[in-house]
Amino acid sequence: MAGLHVRSLLVTGANRGLGLGLVQHFLRMPNPPQWIFATCRDPKGQRAQELQNLASKHPNIIIIALEVSDPTSIKAAAAKVGEHLGGSGLNLLINNAGIAKPNSLDNETPENMIQVYTTNTVGPLLMGQAFLPLLKKAAQGSPGSGLSCSKAAIINMSSYAGSIEDMYVWDFGQVVSYRCSKAALNMLSRCQSLAYKEHGILCVALHPGWVQTDMGSTGSFKPPLTVDDSVQGMLKVLSSISEKETGAFLDWEGKVVPW
Amino acid sequence: MAGLHVRSLLVTGANRGLGLGLVQHFLRMPNPPQWIFATCRDPKGQRAQELQNLASKHPNIIIIALEVSDPTSIKAAAAKVGEHLGGSGLNLLINNAGIAKPNSLDNETPENMIQVYTTNTVGPLLMGQAFLPLLKKAAQGSPGSGLSCSKAAIINMSSYAGSIEDMYVWDFGQVVSYRCSKAALNMLSRCQSLAYKEHGILCVALHPGWVQTDMGSTGSFKPPLTVDDSVQGMLKVLSSISEKETGAFLDWEGKVVPW
Ligand SMILES: NC(=O)c1ccc[n+]([C@@H]2O[C@H](COP(=O)([O-])OP(=O)(O)OC[C@H]3O[C@@H](n4cnc5c(N)ncnc54)[C@H](OP(=O)(O)O)[C@@H]3O)[C@@H](O)[C@H]2O)c1
Ligand SMILES: NC(=O)c1ccc[n+]([C@@H]2O[C@H](COP(=O)([O-])OP(=O)(O)OC[C@H]3O[C@@H](n4cnc5c(N)ncnc54)[C@H](OP(=O)(O)O)[C@@H]3O)[C@@H](O)[C@H]2O)c1
Repeated sequence: MAGLHVRSLLVTGANRGLGLGLVQHFLRMPNPPQWIFATCRDPKGQRAQELQNLASKHPNIIIIALEVSDPTSIKAAAAKVGEHLGGSGLNLLINNAGIAKPNSLDNETPENMIQVYTTNTVGPLLMGQAFLPLLKKAAQGSPGSGLSCSKAAIINMSSYAGSIEDMYVWDFGQVVSYRCSKAALNMLSRCQSLAYKEHGILCVALHPGWVQTDMGSTGSFKPPLTVDDSVQGMLKVLSSISEKETGAFLDWEGKVVPW
Repeated sequence: MAGLHVRSLLVTGANRGLGLGLVQHFLRMPNPPQWIFATCRDPKGQRAQELQNLASKHPNIIIIALEVSDPTSIKAAAAKVGEHLGGSGLNLLINNAGIAKPNSLDNETPENMIQVYTTNTVGPLLMGQAFLPLLKKAAQGSPGSGLSCSKAAIINMSSYAGSIEDMYVWDFGQVVSYRCSKAALNMLSRCQSLAYKEHGILCVALHPGWVQTDMGSTGSFKPPLTVDDSVQGMLKVLSSISEKETGAFLDWEGKVVPW
């Protein structure tokens, strides 16, 4: 990760799966971040136990409560992060939290459609709005005119299942509410990349691969990638991208995914 | 429209704009449909006056109340359409109703995001589910194995603004909630095309062009296309498409729009 020097970052859904894996890999860097804001819905609950254990050994991990479907929770988290950072900005915002419902086209419901969209698409929009001042500050405080993840960036965890062109593993799972939410998230990423470029903020949508997490393992197949493989790949991608890639949809190996 | 022989069709948002234009053009065909289900939110209200006048002269127009953001209203409308059709099916479902909010990325709200998604994306999903039995019936009752709009089809009125690749007229209007909803609608169209192909139902997403309607005229520019130009173009497209085009995103001239 020679190219990735992040002073502060925030990950949503950091208590398990890819979010927890990201926190672990950032900790192991030769130059670990000064602040890792590891956010989760219920910091005191059972599901955050592993993250709590990790934080007890690493004082640069700061656990913050954040429910991405609740605008008030997002604003409160942004205020807390701002306090911790004092005058400095946030380099990297990773919108990782997400949900999937196994529904097919025939049994998809309006309630699911809205819940999945609220978490996977509206959440990242509101996160971008709430953390924009801190991301701007990080960009202003970094030398050079180009864009990079070491300076200021928003990473939206998308999915190949959001590729309208490809319709990846349709026969394996229709997951209509999930596909629609991720296609919309890709659109949001493009909007963010265009609107935030002038502020020095890089924005990409990232497909982590098909990974052995709770979400990845809902079907009968064992996903091909471990969390470590996926996170290692993604961090390599983050270390190498610049203004050329802002607005792109990339996978964990840096390959462009079709919209 | 030599190639378009539709016995029955349904248009949502048929009281004004492109929806009303579609009804008018179907009436003027050399072989007009036997049933035109022209649906709108408030059939008795002021905004449906023009449609009411038209229906008073054309007994093949049947006005039905339909609020696309209300699942109960959709189901009630499907039941009524089924009664009118007796034993026969519905050839063409045009999901035309839609809304746009002029918000930018900075002032987009969760309420808008959900309202626009509910109308523009969830509505067409529920319409497809509710009218599937009638569309299937139409497909079964039509000769031949190919797909066509004369047999059974779902047309989702999308927008070039939903093209993630192109980010059409971004500087003219960010309309983030609208763009996200239409990108998701394009994904839904692809899902419908894959799931409904075996039932003999063609599904496409259609961009009507930039048209002189209430929605098209919100900015300071006068849109280049009249409703007549747009509808004429779209009907020519509908008359020519077949199984090759199912799942495609086409504009009013039949050109492929990038996802
Ligand atoms: N795994 C794959 O194969 C795969 C493939 C493509 C894309 N992705 C994407 O990668 C991201 C991470 O997935 P994963 O595989 O790590 O999933 P996971 O193991 O199911 O973990 C999901 C994480 O998101 C959190 N979360 C869910 N809803 C939330 C909400 N409303 N507010 C805050 N946090 C919330 C969960 O917290 P709780 O513990 O509180 O539920 C959990 O930490 C997701 O965006 C997913 O769509 C995964
Ligand atoms: N005009 C353009 O340049 C343009 C460009 C690209 C795409 N489009 C798409 O084309 C379609 C038609 O647009 P238009 O220009 O004709 O718009 P319009 O003049 O604003 O008319 C919109 C229609 O949708 C109806 N509608 C809105 N919300 C509804 C709901 N919840 N339930 C039922 N009906 C509802 C409206 O009914 P009320 O009268 O009750 O409000 C009206 O009949 C839309 O999907 C739009 O996104 C238009």
